Amino acid sequence: MHEQQRQRTTRMLDEAGVELALFSDFDSVRWLTGLNLSPPALVLFERGNFTLLADEGYGEASIFGDETGCSYVPIVGYTIQQPIDAPARLAEALSEVAVGVNGLSGQVGVEEKSLTLGLWQALRDAFPGSEHRSLEGWLLPLRAVKTEEELARIREGFRLTTIGHEAGRNAVRLGQREIDVWTEVQTAVEREAGKWMQMGNDCIVGHRPGNMSAAPLDFEIIANDSFILDLSVVVDGYWTDSCATYYADQPTARQIELHKFVEEALAYAVSLIRPGETAKEVDEKVRSFMAAGGYEVYPHHTGHGIGLTGHEAPRIVPYNQEQFQEGNVIMLEPGIYIPGVTAIRLEDAFLVTADGAEQISHHDKRLP
Amino acid sequence: MHEQQRQRTTRMLDEAGVELALFSDFDSVRWLTGLNLSPPALVLFERGNFTLLADEGYGEASIFGDETGCSYVPIVGYTIQQPIDAPARLAEALSEVAVGVNGLSGQVGVEEKSLTLGLWQALRDAFPGSEHRSLEGWLLPLRAVKTEEELARIREGFRLTTIGHEAGRNAVRLGQREIDVWTEVQTAVEREAGKWMQMGNDCIVGHRPGNMSAAPLDFEIIANDSFILDLSVVVDGYWTDSCATYYADQPTARQIELHKFVEEALAYAVSLIRPGETAKEVDEKVRSFMAAGGYEVYPHHTGHGIGLTGHEAPRIVPYNQEQFQEGNVIMLEPGIYIPGVTAIRLEDAFLVTADGAEQISHHDKRLP
Repeated sequence: MHEQQRQRTTRMLDEAGVELALFSDFDSVRWLTGLNLSPPALVLFERGNFTLLADEGYGEASIFGDETGCSYVPIVGYTIQQPIDAPARLAEALSEVAVGVNGLSGQVGVEEKSLTLGLWQALRDAFPGSEHRSLEGWLLPLRAVKTEEELARIREGFRLTTIGHEAGRNAVRLGQREIDVWTEVQTAVEREAGKWMQMGNDCIVGHRPGNMSAAPLDFEIIANDSFILDLSVVVDGYWTDSCATYYADQPTARQIELHKFVEEALAYAVSLIRPGETAKEVDEKVRSFMAAGGYEVYPHHTGHGIGLTGHEAPRIVPYNQEQFQEGNVIMLEPGIYIPGVTAIRLEDAFLVTADGAEQISHHDKRLP
Repeated sequence: MHEQQRQRTTRMLDEAGVELALFSDFDSVRWLTGLNLSPPALVLFERGNFTLLADEGYGEASIFGDETGCSYVPIVGYTIQQPIDAPARLAEALSEVAVGVNGLSGQVGVEEKSLTLGLWQALRDAFPGSEHRSLEGWLLPLRAVKTEEELARIREGFRLTTIGHEAGRNAVRLGQREIDVWTEVQTAVEREAGKWMQMGNDCIVGHRPGNMSAAPLDFEIIANDSFILDLSVVVDGYWTDSCATYYADQPTARQIELHKFVEEALAYAVSLIRPGETAKEVDEKVRSFMAAGGYEVYPHHTGHGIGLTGHEAPRIVPYNQEQFQEGNVIMLEPGIYIPGVTAIRLEDAFLVTADGAEQISHHDKRLP
């Protein structure tokens, strides 16, 4: 798994003259291996070879060790014979692996926002005299372009997200609470998946004072309520995202007007997406569209990439000069919020293609 | 909140001559503040004063800043005006806070298994020439003795755990799958709590090949099945734990025999708990009790402490020479496992009192 990811990483590091690197960011480790591990875990890069150091309990990790240029060093996890201490075991394993790395000295690439002082000391003891060179954030642009393997996980996630939305739409009824709707959504997704699923994000009645972004509480659905269900389902480490707005009964004339305008804003946003377009320009155009319609401009992003996290490159925000590339998976999510009264947000996911965007989320966002 | 925790920490650090320390372990930060924050967050200790550096979004953090000897430095979290980068914001905030710390140099206490290289550099820039001194694990023995504030959260957790078990017992029926049982448990707990709850652990049919410890999958409950539901509910950051064994229909004669023996083993284990007893001796005695009964001795711990994590001091395992103290909250959980056939585990929680143990979990573990 994720051979392409390692090839791209090797090419980048070769070009930058990096012979030795330690990836400690958990998302980096999962992206380089394709494994949905639990933390902590490390990947040591040595001139095109990748060594994974992770808990002994992962069956898939030994499969990783059989791939070309890859090896797997299991570390002791749960035991009753000594304290459970993954950081100490990782440091020991790192020292042992380092014995096999000859002829390298000088610089070691590191991710300093996740590498702990303890592991850095172990690394420096293993490679005396070495200095660190920051590779912080180097994988992020690579991660923004998805492979077929990653897209398969993301598409499966959207299949489940759609099932969650169906349950959510049915559960939004007068007298139900936010948490009641949420448990219906969660149950539908987990029963379909046949296992626990990591899920998020917002599950909010329109009359709640802060009705833009919040986890479900015991607010009850009242007459003329709208209901935002913003749902992520995570499949094998890969996030989805999606938002629909439901109604307690028939939406009011005002809600219908807002809902239709947000539909138009979303359609407009999608029409702007193609390789080479700049994130900040799309952001600005969609905000202008909202303002031109006479509506308050949402204070959040116009959209964002997804992948191993729920929010990643490319962010569609005012400062971001990144250009869209084929293979990006992005969310677009315009909304209108009237605090304490009603809120409407609609969100879809798109794969950036050679000449536009393919919609890959399929939940029903229509008015009832 | 958690004033006692800070007083005990100050006393310990004073005695050890530590004037300045940075706590980066997320459990340390939550224990020192009493706040159930999200990562990342830091606490800087300076001669009895505690400064919390954490996301600006936490209303409760400003209340913390009003407590004696405490201050709160909010860091920018979600924004569309610049990249979201909590590690960078924490490093900047740390540098600013350090300006106000005068006359300290020499040693800085750190937790090197969680302190990142990036933050260590920010700290060293702020206190030039300073060396680090390891405080790794120093708070663990203090954390093992709970305060009334912590016990209130834990007791509320056990109220919810009991509700989850009631739903689980009802859901264990022929033809239901593990995940179906789990969604019933989860729904019952979240509806009662009125919000999302972090929950775990095991939800397993007896005929599953690995029937000791596993998350729910789509294994179906068959005739003569037993069913282990090992449930944790986390309230304001504090874990509970609990295990009961249920049956698809009437338990077989063999299951009744095993269930009764595990009940006896649990009662025996409880009878051993009092301040001054050694964890490894209790572990050894309960294992001997199992063996004397003619049963395979379980390969896991006899029990463990709980608190801000699901497994913490004192671990009741073969190597642990720690003595129980008044205020420990511990789990005891003997079990018998016949892989692929049936498995029985019963687990309760106890507060170590002046002369024994008070049971604080109240789920029904009886045979039907």
